[in-house]
Parts: sequence; structure tokens; C-alpha cells
Amino acid sequence: MTLRHVISAEQFDRRFLDGLFDDADTMAAALHSGTPPVSACGRIMATLFYEPSTRTRLSFEAAMHRLGGSVISTENAREFSSAAKGETVADTVRIVGGYADVIVIRHYERDSAEIASRFSPVPVINAGAGAGEHPSQAFLDLYTMKKEKGRIDGLKIALVGDLLHGRTVHSLARLLPLYDGMEIFFVSPPELRIPEEYVECLGRKGVLYNETHDFRAVEDADIIYMTRVQKERFSSEKKYARAKNCYVLGRKALGSLKHDAVIMHPLPRVGEVSPDIDSDQRAAYFRQAMNGLYVRMALLKHVLS
Amino acid sequence: MTLRHVISAEQFDRRFLDGLFDDADTMAAALHSGTPPVSACGRIMATLFYEPSTRTRLSFEAAMHRLGGSVISTENAREFSSAAKGETVADTVRIVGGYADVIVIRHYERDSAEIASRFSPVPVINAGAGAGEHPSQAFLDLYTMKKEKGRIDGLKIALVGDLLHGRTVHSLARLLPLYDGMEIFFVSPPELRIPEEYVECLGRKGVLYNETHDFRAVEDADIIYMTRVQKERFSSEKKYARAKNCYVLGRKALGSLKHDAVIMHPLPRVGEVSPDIDSDQRAAYFRQAMNGLYVRMALLKHVLS
Amino acid sequence: MTLRHVISAEQFDRRFLDGLFDDADTMAAALHSGTPPVSACGRIMATLFYEPSTRTRLSFEAAMHRLGGSVISTENAREFSSAAKGETVADTVRIVGGYADVIVIRHYERDSAEIASRFSPVPVINAGAGAGEHPSQAFLDLYTMKKEKGRIDGLKIALVGDLLHGRTVHSLARLLPLYDGMEIFFVSPPELRIPEEYVECLGRKGVLYNETHDFRAVEDADIIYMTRVQKERFSSEKKYARAKNCYVLGRKALGSLKHDAVIMHPLPRVGEVSPDIDSDQRAAYFRQAMNGLYVRMALLKHVLS
Repeated sequence: MTLRHVISAEQFDRRFLDGLFDDADTMAAALHSGTPPVSACGRIMATLFYEPSTRTRLSFEAAMHRLGGSVISTENAREFSSAAKGETVADTVRIVGGYADVIVIRHYERDSAEIASRFSPVPVINAGAGAGEHPSQAFLDLYTMKKEKGRIDGLKIALVGDLLHGRTVHSLARLLPLYDGMEIFFVSPPELRIPEEYVECLGRKGVLYNETHDFRAVEDADIIYMTRVQKERFSSEKKYARAKNCYVLGRKALGSLKHDAVIMHPLPRVGEVSPDIDSDQRAAYFRQAMNGLYVRMALLKHVLS
Repeated sequence: MTLRHVISAEQFDRRFLDGLFDDADTMAAALHSGTPPVSACGRIMATLFYEPSTRTRLSFEAAMHRLGGSVISTENAREFSSAAKGETVADTVRIVGGYADVIVIRHYERDSAEIASRFSPVPVINAGAGAGEHPSQAFLDLYTMKKEKGRIDGLKIALVGDLLHGRTVHSLARLLPLYDGMEIFFVSPPELRIPEEYVECLGRKGVLYNETHDFRAVEDADIIYMTRVQKERFSSEKKYARAKNCYVLGRKALGSLKHDAVIMHPLPRVGEVSPDIDSDQRAAYFRQAMNGLYVRMALLKHVLS
Repeated sequence: MTLRHVISAEQFDRRFLDGLFDDADTMAAALHSGTPPVSACGRIMATLFYEPSTRTRLSFEAAMHRLGGSVISTENAREFSSAAKGETVADTVRIVGGYADVIVIRHYERDSAEIASRFSPVPVINAGAGAGEHPSQAFLDLYTMKKEKGRIDGLKIALVGDLLHGRTVHSLARLLPLYDGMEIFFVSPPELRIPEEYVECLGRKGVLYNETHDFRAVEDADIIYMTRVQKERFSSEKKYARAKNCYVLGRKALGSLKHDAVIMHPLPRVGEVSPDIDSDQRAAYFRQAMNGLYVRMALLKHVLS
């Protein structure tokens, strides 16, 4: 499978993921021994970010630097690029693709990355497209599960929170059917249920899944994947206020989790995971963020080769 | 001619441009063969952008990286540099010129770059000064004409659109008289005519030129240089609404152009050139943007040597 | 003294400063001979700036590049990082510390840098914390005094202006007692006096000091350290209007200063030092800004080793 653009989780199969995770392991080992491969030497990555980011932009940029490459960057493309003058994404990537060897784009429109990939002369990586997908996050999520539990097959996974707007969950839901014996619990308030398009294929592919609003579903899970209620996607402050803090994982709830459960979160968190559980060995979200560096190094190596 | 600052098109002669274009050819060839010269190795370029930009900032930054140099950058100097605390451009460049080896500045005031050049200890490149000049854009425009048509002498050029605010046209109008047998049509609505200061010298220098509001002037042109009506320079939304879309080049108009015409645009476009002509061989604006990288590499090599 | 985080001037002793200044001398010499040490090769610095900056951010970034390292940067972390989604500084640095080898942070809260240092896995350098401290500025201020006067011991220093909000003065007041025979004049309007916490230790440590609102105190000083009245820290425009321009150093006042006085300013200035004295040999503020590069190179080498 030659990889060109990374737009949707749907593009990828298990073989690709296995290779990517092996490469990520190699990257992590090379970093810790102080000898990362300089496979991006002389290459340029452009980051075009139309929405705020810390983890995704900085980990992609750090990944490129660790590989010996260079970065040209926009922190706020919405207001300070030509988009402010009315330029389309299609025109922007056609141009920037002449300056850089790979484009990493985050945009507020769901179809932005797909459009970008149709017009760019160089590979495009979707780093978050509105309330749509965020595939590289799903890669690092799966990589974290594998690293923490030793396997992905057969895991019981509870996806909790704002499943309507959470694009990391959307991409993840498309990749989990690649593994065998999975069982998924979608835990959300009724108004924040996961969109039909992301679950309809699960049954067909033999994945057991349940939708519930009952937080106790996490008690039986191997992986508890918490998510933030996404204020910026709500149409009114009132609707947001009703939805936020529907589920909070703190010291109290910790006791009812499996002793070898793994607590994940794409971060940032704003209250749904209490800092007082950070020191618990099951809290894997900071290790998960770190894994983003390794997975993105592996991904960049792949698209640049 | 030893080049220090690049402020106004007026500074340059034909010999300089010939040398620059030869260097740009060399840069393009070196990039495609994968061996760009690392003539900026260990050097730092500072980009100080007080107005939005994609093409100009990112192509300058990519040019510096391709030459092996480093970049320190401000995407939004107006709000997030010391300018927000009331610092003058003079003070800012005096300081930044101590950290960097060359400063690339875009500012909303017409005399900003000239002021910067008087106070900076290192070379200053004007990357757009209010509604004034934008010389490096004029260089890449001429380079594109030469590359597309094989020559610049004797070309018939139609400059179309917002000639009042379009700083790329202002810089271009100052360079065209360096060539022989030029014929220029300034095509604009009456309220967006090119300022007198940019045309008065043309007659003296033997350049044939015409001012008209009739779009049919493009039919006889070798080069059709379209420009965007610059919303951000209008005092009212109403005045802008009246001016925009005065000239639109789409599939229909294409038939009446010369079969070997070259359609250029500094970009971004917002409707004056329809995407449905992008695939026509005469549409040169994306190649033109790409040429910006080569010309800016050549320019940086020049000011850093 | 092994240095990890650089949070408050209180952490440092004279021996550390002597070593830092020697290293800064070495850096300056190496830069001018064109052979800076590449001691940061393969390392990454993250700059997290939640408040506007030019000098501090760009000099840290230039320092890192001059040392052969790479930079990942946020110009406006307040609006375009995860902080906009409600993430705490603690969470942000825990993550970014996984991508970078050192974090340079500027934040609008006084305790931000101290919090960051508690959670970051890599060294944190405080680049300005609200109206609190700004230690690396104090280092370069002392380095400038030493370079300009040949010594720091025994200097008479007038600190002038907004001593309430000026964080560079706060950090400086904590370091001056490390030297012998110092005499300090705090010159400010009554409502902008230096906070008690920064002066109480001076007497105990045998430093002579005076608080006055009389600008004539500068006439006897070896060092006149002017500061800007910090508009952004005032609660009302009216209060600011009353305070600004309380002290202005221009051509007229110059005559009453010592002939070998040194005029310093952390910059930016907005009127308190008139540009018409810039060419006077005593005006050291641009040399002072330049010293920031050398001191920050030395500091980065230290925390990265």
C-alpha cells in the first residue's frame, strides 16, 4: 500500500497499521538512544492550521524536526493567511504544495482535507477536519492501546462523552473493526450520540457494540476513552452548559474500574478527567500524547518516502 | 550593483534583473535535481508580518530553508509583537536586525519598509508596504513573463482590476520601462485607476500605454495580468461592492484571447479569475506562484552574500 | 549549581551569574568570528507565548538556531493553543515537554512559570510571568552593566518609571544584592512604587536604597534604567493616562547626567526615552537588546547540558 494522502481512517487496513506501529516503535527507540533517523533531511513540512491546536501542530512539527526536516507554519491561517482575503483551500494548497514536501492541515470544514488532497501536488495529512475526522489521532490511540495492553484484538472499549462532535472518536470507530473480537460501548448523553454513519458498518463487520448513557458501562471496559464536550461546536452556551460534565472520572469512580484498565483521553481535558487520578498507573493520557510524536514521525517518514 | 535593501522597484536596473533571473533558473534546476545550494547555512531570516500573507511569507521561509538557513517568524506582528505595546518599526528592526541576518517585512503603512531600511543593521526586504510597493512580487512576475514567453521586450501587457490599491502592479509599472518596445494597457474602473505617480514616467521612457475601463483591451494582449479588488483597502463595504467583479475572466472570455496569451494573477483570487479556466495551458498563475520560490531563493542568496 | 528550571531571580547566586556572563562573552566572540558552538544540535526548544513579545521570543529562537537547534513555537498561545479550549498550563507543559527539550514560557499569570516547572518533564525558562518576574531579562541587564562599566560592584543605579508592574525591575531587584556596595534609587510616581516584597530584603543585605518620585535622582547615577508605563496592566484608561510620561529622558535631561552614565531600557519604549538621544554614546539600550542574544545562548547551553 503506497500512501499518498492521509484523509480518512477508512483508507487504511490492518497491514498498514501494523507497519506504522512497528515504525513508531523504532522511532521511539531511536529517540531514546539519541539517534533518530534523519529521513526528512532537506525536506519541508507546511502546517496550515485554521483552528487552535497545541498537541497536534507541535507534535507534527517536533516530529519533522526530529527527522531532520524543516517546517513552515501558520498558527492562525483563518485570520492571517490569504483565507482572510477570501482564498479557497483548493488554491492555498496548490500554492503551498509548491513550497513544501508535505502539508498538514486542520480546518473547520468537514470536507476541507479531502478537497485539499484533490488539489495538492504533495501529500496532505488531515490533522482535524471540523467535526469530521482526525485520522492521525486514531493511529496514536490504537498504538497506545497496543503498547499499554500488548494487543488490540479482543479489547472491550468504552468511548465516553461528546461522541457527536468528537472527531477522534469518529476516526477511531472506523478503525476498530479491523481488529478481531472487539466490544465497544458508546457512552454519551442522548443529544451527543455518535452519528449513524460511524456505527452502521460495525455490525456488518461483526463488531459487538452498545449505545448507552449509563456511565457504569466503563466498569467492565479494558479501555476507557474519555472525551471533552466540545464547546466550540455548540450553537448556544445554554446547550453546552447542559451537556458538559455529564461524565466525570475522578478518584471515586476509579475504584469501580478494572485494576488493569487503561484510561485514555485525546486531550485537552476541561473537567471530565480529574487531575487527582493523574498519578494512578491506569491514567495513560500523557503517555498517549507522547506516543503521538512517535506515530507522527513514522507517518511523516511514510508519506515522504 | 551591490544590493543591500530591497525596498522599491525603482532601485533596480535591467542588469540586476538579468542576473537575478539567471540565478532563479539555477535555483529551479538545483531544486529539481535535489541539490539546492546551502548558501544560507548558519544564517537566520526574520519575517515580520503586520498583515496577513500565505504565499509571500511561506515562500520566503521555504526559500530560506531550501538554502539551508533558519527562520524566526511573526505571523501577526500587529497584535502579538511589541507593536501592540506601541513600539515603532524603527525600534523593532534595530533590535531584530541584531538577531537575524536579513529581515523580510510586510506592513500596512506605505513608508514602513523604507523606514525599516534606514534603521536596520541588516538587509531589509519589502514584502508589501500598504498600498505602496511589493518589489519581490514584481521580480517574480517579470521572471514568469520571461519563462512563459521567452522574452520580455516587446510584450503587450494588460494590467486589469484594482490598479489603485494593487501594490504588485505599482512595482511592476516601475520595472516595465526597463524593457524595450513595451505596450501597456491599464484596465480598471475609473475609481480604481493606477495612481499618477506610477504612470508619469512611462511616457518619458518611451513606453506606450493606455488607460481604459474596457475589458476588451485584453484581447490583443500577450500577458493578461488580473488582480483582486482589495476589500481591505476600501473605506466602506458599499464602495467595495460596487467595484468588485468589474472584470471576470472565465471560460467565455477565454475564446477571445490570443491562443498564446499568458494569464497571470498575483493571487489570492476571489472571483475575478474563474477556476473553470485553471486547466487551460494559458493559465499561468500557479506556475507564477511557484516561480516565487525560485526568485526569492535567488534574492536571499544575493542579499546574504 | 546544576540548573534545571529558570523561574525566579531568587534561585541564583553570584557564582552562577559569573559563569553565565563568561559564557555569554564566549558566545558573542564565537558569533562574531562566525563559529558559534552547535551545542543544541538535534535539540528542540518550544516557545509558549500567551502574551505579545518581539525581543524575548525572537532572541530565544535566534539563540536556539545559532546553537544549531530547532524551534517549535506559539506566537499567540492564549487564543490559538489548547488554552482556548480551557487547558491548564500544567497539562500543556506536561505534553509539550514530551516533544521538546526545553520550554520557554510567557504567561499573563504571575505563578504560571512556577506551576509549569512543577509539571514539565524538561527545563522551563520563565520569559515573563504577568507582573511577576522575568529573570532572563535581569541576567542580560546585569551583563550589560558589566560590559558597559567594567564591573557591577559599587554602581549607583536609578530604576525609573512603572516599578509596580515592571517585571524586569522585580527580577533585577532580587539580583542586585548579590553585588557589593550597591546604591539603588527607585524613582516612580507614588501609585507605581515597587512592591514591598522586592525591597524588604535589600536593607537586610546591606544594599543602600532610596524611594523617590524626584527624577533628579538620575543625575548622580551610573546606570539609569528607564521603564515603560505598562498600559496593559492598568484597570482603566484614565489611570494609565495620569501615570504615563511621568518621566521622559530627552536631549534636555541628557546634560545633567554623568558624562559616563549608562542609559538602559528593557524596551519597548513608548515615549519615556526620546529617539533624539539614540546617537548619544551613553544610550546603551540597543546594545542591551543585542546582549540578550548572547545571554540567552549561554542560558540555553546551560539548561540543555
